[in-house]
Amino acid sequence: MNTISAELENKARAAREASRALRKLSTDVKNRALLNIALALEEEQGPVLEANAHDYQAGQAEGLSEAMLDRLLLTPERLAAMAADVRSVAALPDPVGESFDARTLPNGLQVARRRVPIGVIGAVYESRPNVTVDISALCLKSGNAVILRGGSEAAHSNAALAHLVRQGIARAGAPEDAVQFIESTDRALVQQMLKLDRYIDLIIPRGGAGLIQFVAREATMPVVTGGIGVCHTYVDRAADMGKAVAIAYNAKVQRPTVCNSLDTLLVHADTAPRLLPQIAREWGKAGVEMRCDSRALSIVAPLEEVRAVPASPDDWGKEFLALIAAVRVVDSLDEALEHIERYGSGHSEAIVTEDYAAAMRFLDEVDAAAVYVNASTRFTDGAQFGLGAEVAISTNRLHARGPMGLRELTTYKWTILGTGQTRP
Amino acid sequence: MNTISAELENKARAAREASRALRKLSTDVKNRALLNIALALEEEQGPVLEANAHDYQAGQAEGLSEAMLDRLLLTPERLAAMAADVRSVAALPDPVGESFDARTLPNGLQVARRRVPIGVIGAVYESRPNVTVDISALCLKSGNAVILRGGSEAAHSNAALAHLVRQGIARAGAPEDAVQFIESTDRALVQQMLKLDRYIDLIIPRGGAGLIQFVAREATMPVVTGGIGVCHTYVDRAADMGKAVAIAYNAKVQRPTVCNSLDTLLVHADTAPRLLPQIAREWGKAGVEMRCDSRALSIVAPLEEVRAVPASPDDWGKEFLALIAAVRVVDSLDEALEHIERYGSGHSEAIVTEDYAAAMRFLDEVDAAAVYVNASTRFTDGAQFGLGAEVAISTNRLHARGPMGLRELTTYKWTILGTGQTRP
Repeated sequence: MNTISAELENKARAAREASRALRKLSTDVKNRALLNIALALEEEQGPVLEANAHDYQAGQAEGLSEAMLDRLLLTPERLAAMAADVRSVAALPDPVGESFDARTLPNGLQVARRRVPIGVIGAVYESRPNVTVDISALCLKSGNAVILRGGSEAAHSNAALAHLVRQGIARAGAPEDAVQFIESTDRALVQQMLKLDRYIDLIIPRGGAGLIQFVAREATMPVVTGGIGVCHTYVDRAADMGKAVAIAYNAKVQRPTVCNSLDTLLVHADTAPRLLPQIAREWGKAGVEMRCDSRALSIVAPLEEVRAVPASPDDWGKEFLALIAAVRVVDSLDEALEHIERYGSGHSEAIVTEDYAAAMRFLDEVDAAAVYVNASTRFTDGAQFGLGAEVAISTNRLHARGPMGLRELTTYKWTILGTGQTRP
Repeated sequence: MNTISAELENKARAAREASRALRKLSTDVKNRALLNIALALEEEQGPVLEANAHDYQAGQAEGLSEAMLDRLLLTPERLAAMAADVRSVAALPDPVGESFDARTLPNGLQVARRRVPIGVIGAVYESRPNVTVDISALCLKSGNAVILRGGSEAAHSNAALAHLVRQGIARAGAPEDAVQFIESTDRALVQQMLKLDRYIDLIIPRGGAGLIQFVAREATMPVVTGGIGVCHTYVDRAADMGKAVAIAYNAKVQRPTVCNSLDTLLVHADTAPRLLPQIAREWGKAGVEMRCDSRALSIVAPLEEVRAVPASPDDWGKEFLALIAAVRVVDSLDEALEHIERYGSGHSEAIVTEDYAAAMRFLDEVDAAAVYVNASTRFTDGAQFGLGAEVAISTNRLHARGPMGLRELTTYKWTILGTGQTRP
């Protein structure tokens, strides 16, 4: 048994205690707390911006990359955008207390499932300080307590934001202990936190693949594994060329650094000679590098203003998070399905086809959180799917798959109303 | 890294392979396989009864208890009852392919969640050979492959039953590899199996608390933790005495060896003087031993034909699985709620009251899989709740809570049907 830091143990116990009160909190009080937080993000920015300047200067001194520094930076506008996000969460329906599958049994028992909060959520995240506010807002609205452990590079910013959040909760007359922020940046604390299954019901890691894999491996409680998307788009023999070009372009170029962007383009051999030059030219203008199998390369390599190189074996199944796409020519839908089964990460997969039977087979047989016909994989997102804000995109198979919104932060209990029934 | 036995690795790989085919299997074919299994359980009993006689004699020689031997024993009637259970599973609706939360987004995308099998289920169980058939039938109907690891005392019986199951599947033209039975009784194999998260998506342990805790601790994939029920019935100040006596009697006596039976009776101080003597007399006739706090003891100890002893501290929160009940007098609903929060296992909890506000508070504040008003906790059961057969009663908070039927053996994927949509 490892020793647990006193700070961690105390905060975890306080979160568990607060979660009992949160179960009973009315939607009104939760929304009032959220609106308090939004207001403070707009009108009490001083201490947050100061803390952020401290982190930013330290980041510069440590030689963080420009991209990292930009992710770290808070501005009045960014704080206002965070406030708007918190207001959106307040505007979403409260999932807690919803009853479903209600029925009256022959013996008169009234049985139903009622949504309740999960309990205590642990969040382990890197860099972007807005996660502090996002996850707090989603957990609060869904009646869960949360224990936050952010990255050390944003430690002061996160602490200042967590202070605003707790103050907003307290001002609504709700228990501020619902949000716990771990101040210590000692890395050993993450390891300890992942073993606190007696206090924490679910861990949500937000960050790069390294963090997510570490958390999944070490945690003794359930973990939302997600955020790693090796996404394929398969252009079938019977595809509409216009749709195929638009979808492949959008899926790769519109925002290449996110998990639902295209990583590998699979093209049917009959389609490839017409399609690949069109896609290659569009991608070429956007600066996309194509890593091609030999058949794809023979088609696109002769073209001008196209960046095409031979694919190496590890380009299949790689999440590029950049303007790079692996490209392979396949001889059949079956070959495409096998490729996806082998290399996909179960995130988002698409087919472009006008062939009904091919579309249905793809929908039936691809095993992923989101399976598309004739649309860009970039739509895998809680807001796009109509769930409101999302806490993560799960590639787990159990509990929740794909975008996790407020409802996915709840569980249910069975309620049984009787008039003295006993079992015969 | 431990070495994995070749038998285990091969069978796990075969199950994973079969699960791909199972995803696509029609309800008709799955039902035909189930009816084949039922028929064989009635008409091809010889090898099973022979194998069971072998296990039974070995059990006698090893000095198994009468209760253990009875659980092990198979008879023509018991096999016929198993056949009837399999036919019930065939008659249940197929959850796979159900679509829900369907909506058309403003951009025309048609988004829905579609139920799909989880994949590969691992079952680790003790004693009763009928689990071999039960779990196979439920997994098959829900489109999941299953890897079975039964107890060594029933090894021959389980192997013979698994053979009938596989044969029934093959005769329906479906992949018999959907059901894998681990022949080796080497205990090290369980340990190995619990690490095979690359092949097994979910582990279901069925057996005593020791087995369940071992599996929960060692498994690297999700585990259905369940089957441990420390169940309270709280008789409120405003309770109807007739209902209270009937419910307490039923919950303790009707089947004391199961997880949803009463363990602790909490009685409001105002009610105790009238109620406890009535319950104690009824329980006394049934042979129930009462382990009482001092106030309860002072009420029931003077009575004749009542078995009452002082409770020891570890009687609170104990699952007795026998004709024993802990009994405590409390001064308020709050005290009852605190007792349940502290000692309950989150399984089934009941209040007996005619007070509306007390009933609502109990429903809201008790955190358990099943929360009852004026009914016996013995109803926590898949068949009683209208789910059909159950694979387990989960006390997990995530994925499924309470009775797990066919639907709880599925997950979902998002399907998105488009006409060329791209994300702006």
